[in-house]
Amino acid sequence: MTKSIDFYFDFISPYSYLAHKKLDILYKKININYKPILLGGLHKLGGITAPAFNKHKMKNMKNDCELVAVKNKIEFIWNSKFPINSLYLMRGYIAVKDEMKKIFLDSCFDAYWKENLDITDEKNINKILQKVGLNRDEFLENIQNQKIKDELKELTQKAFDKDIFGAPTFIVNNKIFWGQDRLDYAIDEYNS
Amino acid sequence: MTKSIDFYFDFISPYSYLAHKKLDILYKKININYKPILLGGLHKLGGITAPAFNKHKMKNMKNDCELVAVKNKIEFIWNSKFPINSLYLMRGYIAVKDEMKKIFLDSCFDAYWKENLDITDEKNINKILQKVGLNRDEFLENIQNQKIKDELKELTQKAFDKDIFGAPTFIVNNKIFWGQDRLDYAIDEYNS
Repeated sequence: MTKSIDFYFDFISPYSYLAHKKLDILYKKININYKPILLGGLHKLGGITAPAFNKHKMKNMKNDCELVAVKNKIEFIWNSKFPINSLYLMRGYIAVKDEMKKIFLDSCFDAYWKENLDITDEKNINKILQKVGLNRDEFLENIQNQKIKDELKELTQKAFDKDIFGAPTFIVNNKIFWGQDRLDYAIDEYNS
Repeated sequence: MTKSIDFYFDFISPYSYLAHKKLDILYKKININYKPILLGGLHKLGGITAPAFNKHKMKNMKNDCELVAVKNKIEFIWNSKFPINSLYLMRGYIAVKDEMKKIFLDSCFDAYWKENLDITDEKNINKILQKVGLNRDEFLENIQNQKIKDELKELTQKAFDKDIFGAPTFIVNNKIFWGQDRLDYAIDEYNS
């Protein structure tokens, strides 16, 4: 069996973006299983108030993300419309064909955390779709498709059932590592 | 002015213990200003639910602390009576004479996070006092002294007024670093 890291993410999560970029920059050869979840759904299941909804944690999180980005030489802009609802693009990730998933993922993360775009705005969603080369009508139909809606819910529930309550979370050899600060330990486990 | 790191801590906080040990093991030459606060008080002021009071976060925190301890070769036992009230020993830290503070601090942290003792139990408090060489009656009187009680409250409020909402928190050159994961950045700032 090929070794891999399960990487649970949501485009809304700045630390998921930072972990994604670290994986792209530092760990190019790692096999990654991208696991889309809805962070808001996980928090609800876990009875957790997201840091975005506490002004003290929110202020710290902004400074902290900016610092982590500088330390790791990652291009990053704190999105001026944080938090928003990432539901459509997370559904979109599930809907797009396998061979398009990575470029779609890169484009969504970059749009929100590098280009400071409002990814709930149709105009910006269209930009992403053009970049990736996706048909707009087909995409909009897919993200309202009941099967896709249910799949994101199921993936979120399945993650929660594995003791996942936040993003990013990494699973390697059945061991759970929560937070971009634990990526290094996840990589150690991968290389062990 | 001598450079220093302000280290906000509470004996109840496992990550404060881990940061304390890292400072002792890796950064012996750093000037540290120990800043006692009551973590429960900070959380209350900040409207924050501590991870200890969410079963999903609690489970993760135990595993995570054990992992951080192993990675950093720190002796650590998850206390079987976590969380408890650290109020008496935090007041005690304020009450003891300056020259005794470091050994008292070491003894309290070790009692709770290395020796798995219940530090609300009078028998165990007595052990700490004997180890440090403190008079029991004087200590018990001090921790009920209104001035000491008020001082811990004030220190906690002052920390909160500086945007501190958790422990450990480090302040270096007026920059705030929250969490034992940010100790390295705090050290970078100290050395800059």
